[in-house]
Amino acid sequence: MSLPLPDVQAGSPDIKINLTRVGVKNVKKLVEVARAGGKRPVILISDFHIFVDLPSDIKGANLSRNFEAMYEVLEEAISTPIYEVEELCSEVAKRVLELHEYASIAEVGMKSEYMLKRRTPVMKISCQEPATIFAEARAFRTPSNVRIKKIIGAEIVGMTACPCAQELMRDKVAAELTKMGVARKDIDAFLNIVPMATHNQRGRGIISIEVEDDVKVPMERIMRIIERSMSAKTYEILKRPDEAELVETAHKKPMFVEDCVREMAKRVVETFNKLPDDSIINIKQINEESIHQHDAVAERVASIGELRRELKESNAKMNAGVA
Amino acid sequence: MSLPLPDVQAGSPDIKINLTRVGVKNVKKLVEVARAGGKRPVILISDFHIFVDLPSDIKGANLSRNFEAMYEVLEEAISTPIYEVEELCSEVAKRVLELHEYASIAEVGMKSEYMLKRRTPVMKISCQEPATIFAEARAFRTPSNVRIKKIIGAEIVGMTACPCAQELMRDKVAAELTKMGVARKDIDAFLNIVPMATHNQRGRGIISIEVEDDVKVPMERIMRIIERSMSAKTYEILKRPDEAELVETAHKKPMFVEDCVREMAKRVVETFNKLPDDSIINIKQINEESIHQHDAVAERVASIGELRRELKESNAKMNAGVA
Amino acid sequence: MSLPLPDVQAGSPDIKINLTRVGVKNVKKLVEVARAGGKRPVILISDFHIFVDLPSDIKGANLSRNFEAMYEVLEEAISTPIYEVEELCSEVAKRVLELHEYASIAEVGMKSEYMLKRRTPVMKISCQEPATIFAEARAFRTPSNVRIKKIIGAEIVGMTACPCAQELMRDKVAAELTKMGVARKDIDAFLNIVPMATHNQRGRGIISIEVEDDVKVPMERIMRIIERSMSAKTYEILKRPDEAELVETAHKKPMFVEDCVREMAKRVVETFNKLPDDSIINIKQINEESIHQHDAVAERVASIGELRRELKESNAKMNAGVA
Amino acid sequence: MSLPLPDVQAGSPDIKINLTRVGVKNVKKLVEVARAGGKRPVILISDFHIFVDLPSDIKGANLSRNFEAMYEVLEEAISTPIYEVEELCSEVAKRVLELHEYASIAEVGMKSEYMLKRRTPVMKISCQEPATIFAEARAFRTPSNVRIKKIIGAEIVGMTACPCAQELMRDKVAAELTKMGVARKDIDAFLNIVPMATHNQRGRGIISIEVEDDVKVPMERIMRIIERSMSAKTYEILKRPDEAELVETAHKKPMFVEDCVREMAKRVVETFNKLPDDSIINIKQINEESIHQHDAVAERVASIGELRRELKESNAKMNAGVA
Repeated sequence: MSLPLPDVQAGSPDIKINLTRVGVKNVKKLVEVARAGGKRPVILISDFHIFVDLPSDIKGANLSRNFEAMYEVLEEAISTPIYEVEELCSEVAKRVLELHEYASIAEVGMKSEYMLKRRTPVMKISCQEPATIFAEARAFRTPSNVRIKKIIGAEIVGMTACPCAQELMRDKVAAELTKMGVARKDIDAFLNIVPMATHNQRGRGIISIEVEDDVKVPMERIMRIIERSMSAKTYEILKRPDEAELVETAHKKPMFVEDCVREMAKRVVETFNKLPDDSIINIKQINEESIHQHDAVAERVASIGELRRELKESNAKMNAGVA
Repeated sequence: MSLPLPDVQAGSPDIKINLTRVGVKNVKKLVEVARAGGKRPVILISDFHIFVDLPSDIKGANLSRNFEAMYEVLEEAISTPIYEVEELCSEVAKRVLELHEYASIAEVGMKSEYMLKRRTPVMKISCQEPATIFAEARAFRTPSNVRIKKIIGAEIVGMTACPCAQELMRDKVAAELTKMGVARKDIDAFLNIVPMATHNQRGRGIISIEVEDDVKVPMERIMRIIERSMSAKTYEILKRPDEAELVETAHKKPMFVEDCVREMAKRVVETFNKLPDDSIINIKQINEESIHQHDAVAERVASIGELRRELKESNAKMNAGVA
Repeated sequence: MSLPLPDVQAGSPDIKINLTRVGVKNVKKLVEVARAGGKRPVILISDFHIFVDLPSDIKGANLSRNFEAMYEVLEEAISTPIYEVEELCSEVAKRVLELHEYASIAEVGMKSEYMLKRRTPVMKISCQEPATIFAEARAFRTPSNVRIKKIIGAEIVGMTACPCAQELMRDKVAAELTKMGVARKDIDAFLNIVPMATHNQRGRGIISIEVEDDVKVPMERIMRIIERSMSAKTYEILKRPDEAELVETAHKKPMFVEDCVREMAKRVVETFNKLPDDSIINIKQINEESIHQHDAVAERVASIGELRRELKESNAKMNAGVA
Repeated sequence: MSLPLPDVQAGSPDIKINLTRVGVKNVKKLVEVARAGGKRPVILISDFHIFVDLPSDIKGANLSRNFEAMYEVLEEAISTPIYEVEELCSEVAKRVLELHEYASIAEVGMKSEYMLKRRTPVMKISCQEPATIFAEARAFRTPSNVRIKKIIGAEIVGMTACPCAQELMRDKVAAELTKMGVARKDIDAFLNIVPMATHNQRGRGIISIEVEDDVKVPMERIMRIIERSMSAKTYEILKRPDEAELVETAHKKPMFVEDCVREMAKRVVETFNKLPDDSIINIKQINEESIHQHDAVAERVASIGELRRELKESNAKMNAGVA
C-alpha cells in the first residue's frame, strides 16, 4: 500500500497574482475529418493549444491533474468523425472549463494542413493544393451557464501580379507601338487584349471569422473566398496550355495587397449575408514580393457590420459615378 | 524628356473599404547600438515592419511613393548611434505619419538578436548568451498633434526545474533513508541540503511593457528580470565546478511556468516603481518540457496598476500568515 | 485549330554544362499508410522531392513536360494503400527514370510526421507521440537495367539526463551524508537506490539505413531502436505516478550524446543481423541542452560491416575485463 | 581544500564504437568583420558548429573539458578584426585539433547574415540587401602535420522570370498583332523590344567552393557571381522608374533554374581561373515558383576541372555553330 503522492500544484503560491492563461501548446493529435459522399475520412495531424486562466491563490494544482482530462476529452471528441474543426474546439473548451472549477475562461485552438482539390484551367487535370485551416474556441463562465466564442479561419497561397509595374509597362509598349506607326485605336485594342508584363509572386490570403457558438461558418466558403481574391490560383501540375492560361489570367487581374483584402472583404459581406453584425472579421494578405526581399502586407480587422456599411457606401458612390 | 510615369496607387479603388494596416514586414536593416564606456558600437541586423492605415478612397497610392521615405527616415535615424531601440521606432513612426497625410496611425516595430555578457558562477569565465530584444511604436494623429505609444520587450532562454516531480522524488528518498534507519531529523536535514532529482529543461521568459512615448523603460532591467526569474541561467561554457553549481542552483529553485510568470510580475512591480498605473505589462513563460514533446505556457496581461494591487494584497496575506 | 505550343525546354542551352539534379521540392501530397489488423488507414500529408540529372545539351525540356508524369506516378502509387514509404519512393524513382530517357539517375524522397502509440509506464494510459519518418530512393540506369538504392529513416524525440553533472552531485551528496555520520556502506547503498539530480533535456535520435532495393528494413524496428536508446521516452500525458517513474527511469540511465549513438549502433547491429555488410548506417543524436543555449551532437556514419567488427571487438574487450 | 571532481568523460565506454563527429551546434557568437577604407567594422551574430571525431575507447572525456578551450580559441580569434570568415574557421579547427590529441579530424563551420550594398538601377538610391554567408574548415591530422580543407560560400535572393511561359505569351501576342494587320517584320521588331509577360518569383542562388587552406577565394566574388546569374537583383527601395526598369530587365533575361546554375558555373570558371583543378564547386538554384506551391531546384556538384572541360567543349560547339 502506498501513501498518496504529494500534490504541489494544489498548494498556494507565495506570489498570489492572477494568470491570464496557463496550459500547453504544440500538442500534436490525429484528428479525423469526415468527408462527404461516403469517402474515407482524412486523418490529419493537428497542432493544439489548451489554456485556462488561474486565480491568484492557486499555485498550478488542478492544471497538471487535469491535463489528462483535457487529453481524454480530446481523445473522445476525435474518436467520432467530425465535420467542423471549430466544433471540436468548442467541445473541448466547454469540458475543460467544467473540469477547472476555479477557472473562468478556457481557450482551445487548433491548426492543421489541409488538401484542396483543384482542376487545372484548360486540361482539367485533377491536383491537390495544400492549405492551412485553423479554429479556436473560448468558453467563458457566466453566472448562469457557459458562453462560447469561436473562430474559424484559413490561409491559402495564390499568385498576385502588380498593377503598378504593369501600368508602367503599358506606357512603354504604347510608346513603342506609336513609334512603329500603329494607330492609337489599334494600340488601345492591343493593350486591351494582351496583358503587359509585371512582377508577380506568391501571395498568402488569410481570413478568420469570430462568432457566437451557435452560428455556422462553413470553412469551405472561407477557402473559396480567399482563393478567388488573388490574381490567380496555384496548381501543382501545369501543362503548357494550362501555364499559358494561368499567366494570362493573373496578368489580366493585377492586384495590390490592398486590392486582395478589399476583394476578400466584399466577398465576405456578400457570402456571409446572415452573420450577425457583431461578428469579427480579420482579413490579411501577405505578398512575398519578387522584386524585394521583404513582404508587402495589408489587413482589415472589423465587425461585419462595419464592412457592410462601408461596402454599401462604396457601391452607392460607384453607382453615382464617383471614381 | 520623358512624360510623368502613371501613378496607379493614387487612384480610387473600386471597393472603397478602409484598411487597418498596409505596409511591409521582414525588412532587414543594420542598426547600430551604442555601448557605454567608449566601447565600439555593436551593429545588429534587425527585422522591421512598418504600417499605416489607409482610408477607403485611396487605392494604395502614397504608400509606394513613400516606402522610399520610410527607408530614408530609417537610414537617417540609424546613422547616429542610438541607445534605445524603442526611440528609433518612435522616431520612424512619427515621420512616417507626417509623410502619409491621409493616415491616422503609423506602426513601426523591430526585433533583433542581442548578446548578453555573463560570468560563470564559480570560475567566473566570461561568456556570451544570445537574447532577443524587440520594440514597437504606434503614432496616432490627434486633432492637435501626434501621440505615441511604445512597447519595449525581450525574450531570454533559461533553465527551469519542475517542483512537482522533485517533491515526488523527495518522498521516495525519505522512504529509502527511513528504511536505512536514518533518523527523521537527519533525513530532513539531508533533504534541506541536497536537492532531489527532477526533470528540467530550456524555458523562455518574455516581458513586454507598453508606455507613453515620454516614459523611459531601460531594456537592461527587463532582461535582468527575466533571467533571474527562472531556476537558473544558461551559460555557453561550463567547467565542471560551474556545471555542478548550476545544477544545484536550479534544483534548489524549482519553478512551474506559473511561478516564473509570478516572479517576473513581482520583479516588474518592484523594479519599475515609477511607471504610470496604466502601463500595460505582458509576461509570458514557455517551457520546452523534457518529459513531453509539447510546451507548457503561462501568461499574464495586465496594467501595472492591477499587478501592484494584487501584489500588495499578496504581501498582506503572506504577512498575515495565510498560506 | 491551334498551332502546337513552343517547347522552350526541348531546345539546347547556350551553356552546355551537365546538371547533377533538376527537379522539385516541397511537394505536398496525401499518402495513405495502411495499418495492420483491418484498422482504417492513416492518410498523412507528406513532403516530397523528385530530381533527375540533366545532360549538358538539354535546356530543361522533358523536365517540365514530365512533371505531370511524375505526379501521375505519385498519384497512382498512392491510390492503393502502401505499407512501406520507401517502396513508394522506389516505385516513383523507377518510373521517373523511365520517362526521362536522357537521365541516368532519378532521386525521390519523402518526409512525414507519424504518430507513435505508447502507454504510460505506471498507469498504462494510452497516448500518441509525434515522430518523423523519411525515405529516399535513387534509381540508377545501368546498361542492362535499373538499380535502386533506398534509404529508410526516422527521428524521435526523447529525454536524456547528463551523467557528468550527476556524478558531481553524487560526490556532493556522499560528502553531506558522511558529515551526518552515515556509514560508508549505507551511503553506497543509498546512492545505488536513489538517482542524483542532473540536468536533463529533450534529445532527438535519428537513424537512417541505406540498402539495395530488395532488402527489407522495417521502419518500426528503427523507431523502436531510437526510442530505447535515450534516458527515457516522452509521453503526452503523465499522471503523478507516471511522472515520478519517468524521472527516476531517466536518472537511472544518464547518457551523453555519445552514449546514445553507441547504444543505437549496438542495437542496429543486433536487430538487423541479416543486413548485407555494405549497408550504410547513419546514426545521430542531438541534445537540446538545458544548461546551454546550444545543442550537443554526436554522429556515426559507417557500413554495418564496420559496426559489426567494432562491436565484436568491444564485446571481446569487455569480456576480457578491460575497462 | 576540495578533492578533484570526477571526470566521467575520461572513462572508457561500455560500447566501444568510433564516432564520426562529436561536438556542439547552434553556438551563437559575435564576429567582427573588418571593412575596407577605415570604416567601422560590422559585428555580426554568427552561428557556429564545432566537431571532432572520437575513438572507440573514449567515453567523451576531453570533449567537455575542451569545450572551454574551443570557446577560448574562438574568443581570441574574433578579438581581432578578420577579413575572411573561412580563415577564422581554419584557425579554430587547427587549434581544436591540437587540444584533442586523440582526434584525427576537427570540423568548424559558421553561417551569418550579411548586408550587401546596392544602388537602384535608375535613381541610384543606395540600399541594403540581406545575404547569407557561410564557411567551414576541416583539419585532418597527418603523420607529419595538419592538413586543412576549407569551404567558402554564400546564398543570395534574386528574381527569376520563366522563359517557357514567356514564349507562350509571345506566340499569343504575335497572333493578336497579325489579326490586327500588323506586318510580320513589325511584329518581330516589336517582340524584340517589348518583353512579354511571364510568371516570375524569388529565387535563391547558392555557391560553395572547397579548396586547400592556402588557396584564396574572395567571398565578394562568389556573391557577385550569384547576384548576376538570375533574371534581376532585388532592391529594398524601388521608385517607379527603378521598378519599371527592373521588371523590364528581368523579362529580357528569362531563366529556368537550370539556366541559373549553368550561368553560375560559367562565371565560376571564368572568375576563378587560378583555382586548382580539384577544387570542389557546389552550385544550386531554388525558385519559389509563383504559379506553384512547390519549389524548382537545379544543382551541380563537380570539380572546377570538370566544369572547365565542359565549358570548353560548350564554347567549341557554340563557335562551330551547333545550336
